Amino acid sequence: MNQYGVNFRLAIWGESHGPQVGITMDGVPAGIPLAEADFEADLARRRSGAAGTTPRREPDLPTIVSGIWNGRTTGAPLTVTFANTNTRSQDYANVERHFRPSHADWVAYRKFDGCNDPRGGGHFSARLTVALVAAGVVAKKMLPEGVRFTTCLTEIGGCNDPARFDEVVRAAAADRDSVGGVVECRVEGVPAGLGEPFFDSVESCVAHLLFSIPAVKGVEFGSGFAGSRMRGSENNDPITDAEGHTRTNHAGGINGGITNGNAVVVRAALKPTPSISRPQETYNLTTGRVEALEIRGRHDACVALRGAVVVEAAVAIALADLLKR
Amino acid sequence: MNQYGVNFRLAIWGESHGPQVGITMDGVPAGIPLAEADFEADLARRRSGAAGTTPRREPDLPTIVSGIWNGRTTGAPLTVTFANTNTRSQDYANVERHFRPSHADWVAYRKFDGCNDPRGGGHFSARLTVALVAAGVVAKKMLPEGVRFTTCLTEIGGCNDPARFDEVVRAAAADRDSVGGVVECRVEGVPAGLGEPFFDSVESCVAHLLFSIPAVKGVEFGSGFAGSRMRGSENNDPITDAEGHTRTNHAGGINGGITNGNAVVVRAALKPTPSISRPQETYNLTTGRVEALEIRGRHDACVALRGAVVVEAAVAIALADLLKR
Amino acid sequence: MNQYGVNFRLAIWGESHGPQVGITMDGVPAGIPLAEADFEADLARRRSGAAGTTPRREPDLPTIVSGIWNGRTTGAPLTVTFANTNTRSQDYANVERHFRPSHADWVAYRKFDGCNDPRGGGHFSARLTVALVAAGVVAKKMLPEGVRFTTCLTEIGGCNDPARFDEVVRAAAADRDSVGGVVECRVEGVPAGLGEPFFDSVESCVAHLLFSIPAVKGVEFGSGFAGSRMRGSENNDPITDAEGHTRTNHAGGINGGITNGNAVVVRAALKPTPSISRPQETYNLTTGRVEALEIRGRHDACVALRGAVVVEAAVAIALADLLKR
Amino acid sequence: MNQYGVNFRLAIWGESHGPQVGITMDGVPAGIPLAEADFEADLARRRSGAAGTTPRREPDLPTIVSGIWNGRTTGAPLTVTFANTNTRSQDYANVERHFRPSHADWVAYRKFDGCNDPRGGGHFSARLTVALVAAGVVAKKMLPEGVRFTTCLTEIGGCNDPARFDEVVRAAAADRDSVGGVVECRVEGVPAGLGEPFFDSVESCVAHLLFSIPAVKGVEFGSGFAGSRMRGSENNDPITDAEGHTRTNHAGGINGGITNGNAVVVRAALKPTPSISRPQETYNLTTGRVEALEIRGRHDACVALRGAVVVEAAVAIALADLLKR
Repeated sequence: MNQYGVNFRLAIWGESHGPQVGITMDGVPAGIPLAEADFEADLARRRSGAAGTTPRREPDLPTIVSGIWNGRTTGAPLTVTFANTNTRSQDYANVERHFRPSHADWVAYRKFDGCNDPRGGGHFSARLTVALVAAGVVAKKMLPEGVRFTTCLTEIGGCNDPARFDEVVRAAAADRDSVGGVVECRVEGVPAGLGEPFFDSVESCVAHLLFSIPAVKGVEFGSGFAGSRMRGSENNDPITDAEGHTRTNHAGGINGGITNGNAVVVRAALKPTPSISRPQETYNLTTGRVEALEIRGRHDACVALRGAVVVEAAVAIALADLLKR
Repeated sequence: MNQYGVNFRLAIWGESHGPQVGITMDGVPAGIPLAEADFEADLARRRSGAAGTTPRREPDLPTIVSGIWNGRTTGAPLTVTFANTNTRSQDYANVERHFRPSHADWVAYRKFDGCNDPRGGGHFSARLTVALVAAGVVAKKMLPEGVRFTTCLTEIGGCNDPARFDEVVRAAAADRDSVGGVVECRVEGVPAGLGEPFFDSVESCVAHLLFSIPAVKGVEFGSGFAGSRMRGSENNDPITDAEGHTRTNHAGGINGGITNGNAVVVRAALKPTPSISRPQETYNLTTGRVEALEIRGRHDACVALRGAVVVEAAVAIALADLLKR
Repeated sequence: MNQYGVNFRLAIWGESHGPQVGITMDGVPAGIPLAEADFEADLARRRSGAAGTTPRREPDLPTIVSGIWNGRTTGAPLTVTFANTNTRSQDYANVERHFRPSHADWVAYRKFDGCNDPRGGGHFSARLTVALVAAGVVAKKMLPEGVRFTTCLTEIGGCNDPARFDEVVRAAAADRDSVGGVVECRVEGVPAGLGEPFFDSVESCVAHLLFSIPAVKGVEFGSGFAGSRMRGSENNDPITDAEGHTRTNHAGGINGGITNGNAVVVRAALKPTPSISRPQETYNLTTGRVEALEIRGRHDACVALRGAVVVEAAVAIALADLLKR
Repeated sequence: MNQYGVNFRLAIWGESHGPQVGITMDGVPAGIPLAEADFEADLARRRSGAAGTTPRREPDLPTIVSGIWNGRTTGAPLTVTFANTNTRSQDYANVERHFRPSHADWVAYRKFDGCNDPRGGGHFSARLTVALVAAGVVAKKMLPEGVRFTTCLTEIGGCNDPARFDEVVRAAAADRDSVGGVVECRVEGVPAGLGEPFFDSVESCVAHLLFSIPAVKGVEFGSGFAGSRMRGSENNDPITDAEGHTRTNHAGGINGGITNGNAVVVRAALKPTPSISRPQETYNLTTGRVEALEIRGRHDACVALRGAVVVEAAVAIALADLLKR
């Protein structure tokens, strides 16, 4: 459903081309200083503009419509909305029944009996992640002082040399194609003891949120898939003191589903943007035939560029919810 | 918490060396034929005995203690328990405060103020997965006819040639060491339309459960991490008919978080068993020093061998819950 | 928390004097025709204007900001907002620390460390019930055809003769006082079989929502408290046919927590509005003394008059959620 | 569903004549001293034996099967089971399709397509309240020191003179009939600030649990239904000090859904036991006719006698869950 969390709960709504996207956060403690300007830094990280990002420009101005009084949170639900201003729905007229490959168009049509809003992907649009970023900002304010996020792209299009990222993206764009990437989020200063056995391990909660992000198709913690190729003697992290510090951190800061006080390390694999401008052969419900589709609209050649802050937001939200239990 | 699900809900309990491990399943439809013998096939897949598996032998006899009448489910909670019979708690006396690396010993001690049951890992033991397997059996009975699971190990210790798996495990065991592996679960016949935007994508729900399994540290769907290294034109799956079939299946049967009618494909990375019998240097709370620990007890050299059916159970449970929404 | 439901889920937000009150509904099926005008009939029943209702006039114009496309619900979250236009916050300056008796002022101040929004009761205001009424309208559209609600006041100020209700309210208002009342909601055509043992009985779910309504202090089903004074032979409802019809309906249409196909009958006791204009002696945190408080602001002499439709909405929401399980 | 709670979560199972009734409690803090003997006092209050209670005698010996180690809770799920020993299923052979009036027999048959366990009411039996009482014992241990419960019957069969209760019950039993009653639970020492707007008011949570108890058909807080007949000037509770103490307590210790530090006072109306031994005319599915039914089995002439401790348990559970948020 469109709600997440136990003690820090989100409800999200909106469509790519509807009047607004919004999120309401329940369980935010009273007394946290908060203004609309506080969202700007993270929203800017998500905003388009760099090479390889969509030419659609949204100002992304957050409006706090509830839960604030005298510049502080009140303990009541905190709701933030974003007006959609820069929509060009006519770009999508041709995809309503000529389904874009690897998009949600066909499943949305099937699941909602053709009543889904198809404009710009409707409710399935990555546009909704703007609301997730807003919730991430609030989540970070709920975490204890000393928690520090370092989030970066470790790979783009299979290349792991950041000096060449721009080149890789431009090459794909020049080919009217797209590339994916891997985002790593590292969180230092997370208190030991977060996470709830059996089903609400830190990995479960973080992955649950990460896999809500439209492009994410893989998630790993610490040594992850590489760790499954090691021996126990290599992958194990010997404990070095009473505070649980470990010599290595192959566990990504989590044992038994519970934070161990070392840095939490998670990586998310983002697929290449499915919207590419080169023609693709795909099924057209109107004609009943497989036909070439040319996607108009405005898209990212590498959605991972703007996705790093969204991944970070998801991790922060999961940790904030676990911290409040 | 120790509960999972919305319309098919589980609650799990028990410890490695307590009297029993159990699970209660809520939301099981009335009228499903069910007997204790129905659990045997999957329990056998999880049972130890093969080379590389623990010498601890548990008969794993399930007892249905509620929710059944005249050989059919009643619609009331279905509860299955497993007595623990073959415990050797004395093996764990030395690890209560001399924390095993990469186990939950230290986090459990910290989170529960030293009141956790340390025998065999207590509630954090992989012993609890026997209950998950039982729930998976019921979940599979709740899925429509025609849903077929194919689950196998695609890698052990980095080797992806099944002909050599046995050799890899024996070599590790001979070195008093352990190896991890990758389990792939492929589900054909899943109806299109399962999954709930925004937060309860199929990937979110499946991953949530998979990361509850003690050894899992990575999860990917379809092309997953490899897909993030492809271009959009390669990774996209063109749709070929009105039923949503696609030419390729890099999406692993899921678009926009919703099943698209193609096979659901998921892989889980299982770390090497942290319990190895060679001595490891790790912190001893009693002496306040880092000292060599020798783990007694009986352990798997490759937990992934017995983990395949657990992964399958987790996938089945997630699908059954989504199907009931 | 500010969320309710399992398969039909609400999240509510807003304050009496903030920019808006809103609600987002998750789990609304796709394809239901819906326009803003559809809310008008029920909103009119809640609107003030009659004798005994507050002079604060809110136009209560609903705005659907998500979940609708081409005049039908889309299956995505349906969000409805109401702007607050007619606020007079200066009326509340004197009650911020001079707590009104039997209001939430003191508990809000205590629970949220003085950071709560005190204007007009903030998030605790009955103003939020406008959003509940909107959700009730949608809930009723989700129920099967043939479900009919009949909701009325059976008592005002202890008087159970509707012909005298107006007189009772005017007398209280003339005394600068207020009166309570009892609302009865009767629902015919409810399918048999709604309700989930053990904890989600129909009574549990309906009462949970009813007790969210600020003024409700008592709830009973069927013969309720009066039934506890009968003998079994009087209170029992003999079944007369295979469809479960009963000769009497002391059970209020619910046995074992499950609807039995007879009319669901529930009554809610609403306390007299605590805001009365006559002076009341109560604690003033600023002076540290008990002192006379004169409540300004604009209030209902009988909140039950406007509460009937709110009670009906709560019942409809609970039934819609149970129906979707 | 058969689960309740957010941070203190219950899952209940079992049938009247199945092998066991059980409950698992999640979220119990680690370190609480607990032994099976601790349940005895409250179980004794629920046990039959007095005049007017069922001749079915169950020893009600609790077995703790998980969550305990060295005499203290471990933080893992705490599971308590009760074996059913004294069942006489043959008593129910005649009611499987000849539905008892005002019992769950017909709705269970309908809802579960005839697959429900009909013996002794199956999962709908008041037998399950033994598990609720066990959870109540644990809940009370989770509440702060100084919280004191006083629970008593204020009415039996419409009589509010405790001196005559025994006589009222005996008279009903002599007539092969039954009587209901009203239970009042008063809790002193509850900290101010429990309860979560908007939907999880203290009243909502307490009532949700109370209406799970099979016989409860009405719930009121403080002055309740009587309060709806008062004027505001009578029903209001003036605050007398900075700690929120009030001169009167018509609110039953709850304002705006939040505890205000005064005693929480709640009353539950329990209907007369529907099982009476005098013949009743009711529908017989086998013959397709309304026919006289004679209920065998062993029943309470006044279930309220044993219900007081169940009501108390429900209140304690709701408060413990709210306290942990």
